[in-house]
Amino acid sequence: MAITLAELAHALDAQLWGDGALRITGAAEPAQAGAAAGGSAVIAMAMAPQYAAALAPGAAALIADGMDPEALGLSGAVIVARPRLAMAGLTRALDPGPELAPGIHPTAVIDPSAEIGEGAAIGPFVVIGPRVRIGARARIAAHVTIGADSVLGEDALIHAGARIAHGVTAGARLILQPGAVIGGDGFSFVTPEVSGIEEIRHTLGHRGDVREQHWVRIHSLGGVRLGDDVEVGANATIDRGTIRATSVGSGTKIDNLVQIGHNVQIGRDCLLCGLVGVAGSVRIGDRVVLAGQCGVSDNIFIGDDVIAGGASKIFTNVPAGRVILGSPAVKMETQVEINKAIRRLPRLAAQFAELQKTVARLVQKD
Amino acid sequence: MAITLAELAHALDAQLWGDGALRITGAAEPAQAGAAAGGSAVIAMAMAPQYAAALAPGAAALIADGMDPEALGLSGAVIVARPRLAMAGLTRALDPGPELAPGIHPTAVIDPSAEIGEGAAIGPFVVIGPRVRIGARARIAAHVTIGADSVLGEDALIHAGARIAHGVTAGARLILQPGAVIGGDGFSFVTPEVSGIEEIRHTLGHRGDVREQHWVRIHSLGGVRLGDDVEVGANATIDRGTIRATSVGSGTKIDNLVQIGHNVQIGRDCLLCGLVGVAGSVRIGDRVVLAGQCGVSDNIFIGDDVIAGGASKIFTNVPAGRVILGSPAVKMETQVEINKAIRRLPRLAAQFAELQKTVARLVQKD
Amino acid sequence: MAITLAELAHALDAQLWGDGALRITGAAEPAQAGAAAGGSAVIAMAMAPQYAAALAPGAAALIADGMDPEALGLSGAVIVARPRLAMAGLTRALDPGPELAPGIHPTAVIDPSAEIGEGAAIGPFVVIGPRVRIGARARIAAHVTIGADSVLGEDALIHAGARIAHGVTAGARLILQPGAVIGGDGFSFVTPEVSGIEEIRHTLGHRGDVREQHWVRIHSLGGVRLGDDVEVGANATIDRGTIRATSVGSGTKIDNLVQIGHNVQIGRDCLLCGLVGVAGSVRIGDRVVLAGQCGVSDNIFIGDDVIAGGASKIFTNVPAGRVILGSPAVKMETQVEINKAIRRLPRLAAQFAELQKTVARLVQKD
Repeated sequence: MAITLAELAHALDAQLWGDGALRITGAAEPAQAGAAAGGSAVIAMAMAPQYAAALAPGAAALIADGMDPEALGLSGAVIVARPRLAMAGLTRALDPGPELAPGIHPTAVIDPSAEIGEGAAIGPFVVIGPRVRIGARARIAAHVTIGADSVLGEDALIHAGARIAHGVTAGARLILQPGAVIGGDGFSFVTPEVSGIEEIRHTLGHRGDVREQHWVRIHSLGGVRLGDDVEVGANATIDRGTIRATSVGSGTKIDNLVQIGHNVQIGRDCLLCGLVGVAGSVRIGDRVVLAGQCGVSDNIFIGDDVIAGGASKIFTNVPAGRVILGSPAVKMETQVEINKAIRRLPRLAAQFAELQKTVARLVQKD
Repeated sequence: MAITLAELAHALDAQLWGDGALRITGAAEPAQAGAAAGGSAVIAMAMAPQYAAALAPGAAALIADGMDPEALGLSGAVIVARPRLAMAGLTRALDPGPELAPGIHPTAVIDPSAEIGEGAAIGPFVVIGPRVRIGARARIAAHVTIGADSVLGEDALIHAGARIAHGVTAGARLILQPGAVIGGDGFSFVTPEVSGIEEIRHTLGHRGDVREQHWVRIHSLGGVRLGDDVEVGANATIDRGTIRATSVGSGTKIDNLVQIGHNVQIGRDCLLCGLVGVAGSVRIGDRVVLAGQCGVSDNIFIGDDVIAGGASKIFTNVPAGRVILGSPAVKMETQVEINKAIRRLPRLAAQFAELQKTVARLVQKD
Repeated sequence: MAITLAELAHALDAQLWGDGALRITGAAEPAQAGAAAGGSAVIAMAMAPQYAAALAPGAAALIADGMDPEALGLSGAVIVARPRLAMAGLTRALDPGPELAPGIHPTAVIDPSAEIGEGAAIGPFVVIGPRVRIGARARIAAHVTIGADSVLGEDALIHAGARIAHGVTAGARLILQPGAVIGGDGFSFVTPEVSGIEEIRHTLGHRGDVREQHWVRIHSLGGVRLGDDVEVGANATIDRGTIRATSVGSGTKIDNLVQIGHNVQIGRDCLLCGLVGVAGSVRIGDRVVLAGQCGVSDNIFIGDDVIAGGASKIFTNVPAGRVILGSPAVKMETQVEINKAIRRLPRLAAQFAELQKTVARLVQKD
């Protein structure tokens, strides 16, 4: 999977310098990339001046605007304005991806009523249920299961062992990492009598007589609806809705081991990082970012453009645009103040005890 | 999977009003349900007065005691006393479930010594080991593996790709969501010499000479024992015990991505929500509820009827009936007080500094 | 899988007492073990004096140095110096492990270019890609997938449904529990314009104009490199690197549902417990222990021999040898002080209000 340096510059909409005919066979950090040889090179990622020292003379490199390829002794360079964005283009250009053979593997079990789009690749031991529709050029790796009536758009990439239950709908370019589960049953139960949980929601902690409680299952009739360009990480789980579908908007990316409860509605272009948990019936706006291990209580609302720092626990509604942190989560600047004050708290407590004594002496004299 | 409105009322042990012959083909929120037509209807979930405004004239609806179907212009209604409980019955009645073909799929690999109960459905590529016994009417979806000597009760529903290791025993009506793993090896290691962890358990943080430590595995000879009516969520994991079995009592429900360590003993009718982690050798009583992302340290005891709020981290034993919150978890009412005080802490610190100055002036004058 | 008591004593490098010819068929707690009968016994785990009371007369037992087998009425005993270490040897000796038939199951789909080591056992429906190399005596259970160019060392044990992507390299004795995913794509995205997240990293919470942001994927060209004796828990996930490999050093053990992000470098002999999350590009030293539900922010450094208590959230670099706790994590002894002070904080706030009044009265009089 090699491209020329000139093709790479073109793909990145960036400036080419030097030998555009160099065949780029991979990418590496500057110290590992070495010099171009025999018309080929591993391109060095040197997109800030501090990385340039490790470049070998004669190397091919990706460098940032303002760096001088000649002074660095390069054989060729691609000069980019926004280095991190260039990484996206470079890595896409060089990624061989999982090696999925074209066509349908003979071991796949596909219901005769399913429709498979043109150019789809379906791997060994895949199981596809009744009335499923799969878009053109989908790539479905080994051991994937897709339940009845589910629909995948064009250019889906479903990695090994991902599970799509029945009644799941996805737009174009869906990516599921290995082991992701879309459409498991919601965790929704009810007791014949009022339960301890219902009681403390009203009393904030006081419980009356503790009593027997037996959980009766509320089934999940709704499916899951995913927009275009959604990505779901390895072993992440998105539960189906109770009556309407759980939904995730276009462009939203979900990391490994994230849990999305039943009935949750997530907007467009959000990022949910590793081990985030979103409880049932939460509504999340557009462009929301939840850092790793954040948690969101059930039935609350998070406005557009909210950003929550790592391990924030969100118990109440959050207005649009707010940046939050902590458990319970508050405005980030407030939490930073709180954290400082907490670090000093043991000393404050000691000083307070001193001050009490001082005042007691003053009162006595008074 | 349609039933009549009269059958539904009967199934819910609720009052029928209007056209009992209406065929109910699904359920929806009031605004989506529309009017009955051609003898069929999607039933509207309108179980509180505030939802009634969105009902279409001529709709069929599930309504709560005290609402007036005639005034609402319905064609038919089922009137229920406890709406959330009615949801359980309604959704069960309408759930088609995963479409598993009856019988044993020809691709399944089943050890000749395994016993499969009457009426069981076993999907493609399922692997069942030696001496396994599976109860009547079990439904086992594609790609499930069941290890040697494991036993499942009647009416099990094992979703795609769930993993049951060897020596796992389950009662009737077990439900495993996709990717659940029952009976992985415990995370139990020992160093030939006393390790840093053992040292700080005694010293609460002080370490002597740091030294090499190499982890030797303690194997897990015990299996896992699950009671009746246990449900385990997607990609959740329950490790096997070291000597005796890890056990989960009847009626206990475990959500997605929950981790239950080796040797843990969980009682009956508990709820463990998404991303909860229970470390090794913990004992948990009956009817305990752990909200999402709670954590429980190893070797501690949680009494009956304890309820822990979201993201509580439980480091010490909890007496029966207590409602707790926070990290480290304390009584919920205490934590609510603490949270208030922490929010005001930066201001308190500033006021304290002021007061120190005031007192200093008084002392000086004194 | 029975061994004699003498063989067991020899395997544990421990002292034998009594009838060394007893066949040991299993292990149990003292109350369950019963007496030896017919030349066989289930060995009782009685490695501390308080467990000895439950021993049946005539039992075979594992006991600690200093306990008297004769006084306990045993038929045979193995006397050990470090009981927990003895558990490792005992359980290894008695563990039948998963019952994997030798040889390659006829349903496995193995690329002709793959090399399978001598004595390997490969289960049903396993899929092995091009140019994969698997060491001698590897045991690979049902439904495992191994992507192109991956390499496993000798004596690997890969449990059912584990996923190894392309370009993963592992040393000897790798153990993957069921559903573990090694080599999923990194969660790495960039926006064409500066995003909200990049902005608040500089401003600590202040945001300028909120704007559209669309995430462009940075592909993961690096693989994953695992040392010798690495173990990865059920449904845990380790992402591939962007340019170089994500790496885990020899002897490191990773528990269930742990998430390791792209580019992370972990040293030797570490323990990462259940539900730990390590964000991208973190570097972790040797012998580090992260207890359950710990979280580590991206791009930070954790020195050798650090121990982090349960649910610690690590936002900044940690020097070697430190023992930490809390969120944000600080020295454990500091956190213990902070926790005490926080518990007393509501009372402190009330006392402070009193003191303010007292001082106000003094000032007035003054």
